[in-house]
Amino acid sequence: MTATPTLQPILLDGRWQPASEPIDQFRAINPATAAVIEDRSYPVSGWSDLAALLQAGRRAAATMATLSSERIADFLDTYATCLEQRAGALVEAAHIETGLPRKPRLAQVELPRTTGQLRQAAAAVREGSWRRATIDSAANIRSWLAPLGGPVVVIGPNNFPFAFNGVAGGDMAAAIAAGNPVIAKAHPGHPHTSMLLAEAALEAIQATQMPPATVQMFFHTSPELGLRLVSDPDTAAVAFTGSRAAGLALKAAADQAGRPIYLELSSLNPIFVLAGALAERGSAIATELHGSCALGAGQFCTRPGLVVLPPGGPTLSFVAQLQSLTEAATPGTLFTPHSPLAVDAAVQRLRGAGAQVLAGGEMATEVTGFAYRPTLLQVSAERFLLHPQTLQTEAFAHVCLLVRCERDDEFERIAASLEGNLTGTIYSASDGSDDALCDRLATCLRPKVGRLLNDKMPTGVAVSAAMNHGGPYPSTGHPGFTAVGMPAAMTRFAALHCYDNVRQQRLPAALRDASPDGRMWRLIDGQWTRADVGQGGA
Amino acid sequence: MTATPTLQPILLDGRWQPASEPIDQFRAINPATAAVIEDRSYPVSGWSDLAALLQAGRRAAATMATLSSERIADFLDTYATCLEQRAGALVEAAHIETGLPRKPRLAQVELPRTTGQLRQAAAAVREGSWRRATIDSAANIRSWLAPLGGPVVVIGPNNFPFAFNGVAGGDMAAAIAAGNPVIAKAHPGHPHTSMLLAEAALEAIQATQMPPATVQMFFHTSPELGLRLVSDPDTAAVAFTGSRAAGLALKAAADQAGRPIYLELSSLNPIFVLAGALAERGSAIATELHGSCALGAGQFCTRPGLVVLPPGGPTLSFVAQLQSLTEAATPGTLFTPHSPLAVDAAVQRLRGAGAQVLAGGEMATEVTGFAYRPTLLQVSAERFLLHPQTLQTEAFAHVCLLVRCERDDEFERIAASLEGNLTGTIYSASDGSDDALCDRLATCLRPKVGRLLNDKMPTGVAVSAAMNHGGPYPSTGHPGFTAVGMPAAMTRFAALHCYDNVRQQRLPAALRDASPDGRMWRLIDGQWTRADVGQGGA
Repeated sequence: MTATPTLQPILLDGRWQPASEPIDQFRAINPATAAVIEDRSYPVSGWSDLAALLQAGRRAAATMATLSSERIADFLDTYATCLEQRAGALVEAAHIETGLPRKPRLAQVELPRTTGQLRQAAAAVREGSWRRATIDSAANIRSWLAPLGGPVVVIGPNNFPFAFNGVAGGDMAAAIAAGNPVIAKAHPGHPHTSMLLAEAALEAIQATQMPPATVQMFFHTSPELGLRLVSDPDTAAVAFTGSRAAGLALKAAADQAGRPIYLELSSLNPIFVLAGALAERGSAIATELHGSCALGAGQFCTRPGLVVLPPGGPTLSFVAQLQSLTEAATPGTLFTPHSPLAVDAAVQRLRGAGAQVLAGGEMATEVTGFAYRPTLLQVSAERFLLHPQTLQTEAFAHVCLLVRCERDDEFERIAASLEGNLTGTIYSASDGSDDALCDRLATCLRPKVGRLLNDKMPTGVAVSAAMNHGGPYPSTGHPGFTAVGMPAAMTRFAALHCYDNVRQQRLPAALRDASPDGRMWRLIDGQWTRADVGQGGA
Repeated sequence: MTATPTLQPILLDGRWQPASEPIDQFRAINPATAAVIEDRSYPVSGWSDLAALLQAGRRAAATMATLSSERIADFLDTYATCLEQRAGALVEAAHIETGLPRKPRLAQVELPRTTGQLRQAAAAVREGSWRRATIDSAANIRSWLAPLGGPVVVIGPNNFPFAFNGVAGGDMAAAIAAGNPVIAKAHPGHPHTSMLLAEAALEAIQATQMPPATVQMFFHTSPELGLRLVSDPDTAAVAFTGSRAAGLALKAAADQAGRPIYLELSSLNPIFVLAGALAERGSAIATELHGSCALGAGQFCTRPGLVVLPPGGPTLSFVAQLQSLTEAATPGTLFTPHSPLAVDAAVQRLRGAGAQVLAGGEMATEVTGFAYRPTLLQVSAERFLLHPQTLQTEAFAHVCLLVRCERDDEFERIAASLEGNLTGTIYSASDGSDDALCDRLATCLRPKVGRLLNDKMPTGVAVSAAMNHGGPYPSTGHPGFTAVGMPAAMTRFAALHCYDNVRQQRLPAALRDASPDGRMWRLIDGQWTRADVGQGGA
């Protein structure tokens, strides 16, 4: 017998407080051992918690709207430092709750990525040009992007316990940087990790004297209350990263209530390998593809799930090499008890539509933790084009479907049959021999994907201002926005505010005639400039 | 007996073609005489027309994606010129179909506004900075805003036959400027006007050798087919300006299908007149308010429908003056046979919630055309706060509800009870005596409105880059976008396209290292610049 674990508090309005009327409780599970982590239990919040979070969030929004950019940037920088000071505990907690390796993944890749995002957001806030301040001095009309006026609800996924965590990840950083408080829902897969992150957030809130409810966090709620939360009048916007089914349910509720919602849902990240590239460097591409599929046990939004191949001899060796690599690969740890079943269901769906298993395709029953055998399938292009929808079933694991073409035009027809994706990749020969097909294919593929790659696997989303981690529906809910990359990601959480004939002293400082710092680019009377109104030039 | 009128063709893929399987037909009505305009009849399109428009639109989108900015800008400029060449016929048709005065409204205000919008869009396309080209040279990741990859469906309202017409207005100009073809639905209130506009568009298409389906137009369809159109996979996005009921039905369909939809729905445009301003210049404000309410018979999105007043003597004279002005005003022409009934229903709803009629409040039965008597109502702030929802019922006519406060704090409470609006206005004294209340009130009002005005009526939306003709739900569907003002309005119709490790010659010219023209601002390695990659500086 184990002792009754302590029910953990939620972070409400700057204090750790017991859930007021929890409707249930849960414990985390170590996915590498399948053992329940007994020492802590977490509340499934009822509406009274969510209502209290919203109320505090609304108050914080009103205060944050009055703060300088410098204050908000300081908070983001301080939060990054507070996370670094807890690096050891964070990495250990995340390792236990997710099965992800301490090194390099958690300590050397994901944590630095997370603090880097916060600092990039801080820099974008300080610089200020993201607000697109626009001044028509003759008409005395001025506008810029401003906070939304309420809290942003951020719901993070299971696969990045730091970098996409609702309480510390990119969406949270973007929402705060745009001047909004955040209500984070911790993912139930890694609640202790999320608590440690939220403790760092609270320390940073106190150190920089931000409103107590700048960042709040709860652990879980019922699906019904989740829908109620995202459609509540006090919710200013929502960011969600996770499964398509959950995301679309939240989208329907938020849309109906007129709340902006940004979703990152699902993506197959198709890869087209053209004949010249295969002949030139097929073996290297097979190795690269296998590595990309295996990364994080395939639990990446940008994992390549569909690879389109030309006819011919080099394809035979490519497939054989990939088959050997996949068979020899060790099953990685999946995040939840449900994961292997969901992956198997997807694989069975692909098989049902005619895909043939070349490797894996079954549970890894000899493994203690949650796992599925690394899986490679293939299908003819002809067959794919008969069942394009079923054969675009995503499996959130190391599962890759090869599509074998017989003719060049099948490449374009497959591209045209694809749903919206985060990424699409073309590998072509360096000697130009694939260029004609590559151009035609890129034309079909471009409107289907957020990021078009050449000769490079899509995993490893660089945190860069030029990144687009977004794409057409159903990969996300809107093709115009990215979830990664400052300042573009921040604009999701902003309202356009116009001031018409408002007296100078009543305007936000950055919209007055004199530039407050000479740093922010403003569009004044049709010219982008850092100068004051009437000073012209750049 | 009159001769059977000719059934007019639709503009499909560059040619005027008969509707293939119309489900009905309709004629326009002269709202000033209530007479049916007998000489032309217009088809209510069935799905076969809409499917053909979509198919042609999809082809045009693929071609437009390959065109230079210069080509698209030339088309917009040429279209403006073609409209000017038809000014006489356009003004006459619009006058007959809408009852709006030829001068100044149609000929001197709305037509120049329409051609101005097209030319401002052309200028923004040529300049190019709206695309936010962003280059990370070290990572070789590059992104910009690009066309959506399919046609944009634009559904215009009844109240601006030129400037918001689906085939010539701001949404159309913005969608084309962003590189997308447009499928316009003419408003059934002014079909002949829309045909004349579309003829000008076709001439411009031919003169500038644009794809034939760059701009297409149909006249009408059933509500069910309208929902099918906006949710079709070939529809890239939708812009709608009109009633809240129709807009929300379209929004639900488009949201469900994951299509971006931009709506401009309804707005009361609240005005707060503070005590000092009333004492200082109450009579001038009353005259100004009356003029704003009467403009276009009150059929403006930004017509002031709600005016909040302080207690005291100056308010009594203000109300008395407004009452006299309203009683003396001639009923203006409303657009449709249904308009007077809809206005009366709204007025009855306001009365039912406790508003008292001070002037008007009934049909103008002695007038030949469609009309409602200019109407002024009043209600106490206390009563307003008991029924804030009902008392925010919009009447699309000259109908204005005065809310009489007894205490200062009621101003803020009323502001807090408001739905999202396009505009909100505060009149305050020039001597600073209202400033404390003005500041508190502005804090409440700011997040509720897209455009905050001081000492100025909200009608007369300047076409300026700094304008925001948008606002929080339910005034529009998204608080981050404007329907007026280039280049901001264009970004609604763009997808974020990222290129990762793509070879230089395969990149769009504007994303290559060398700037194509030295004119476009690009964010290169964190710095906004017009220089080439590696040249630094501004």
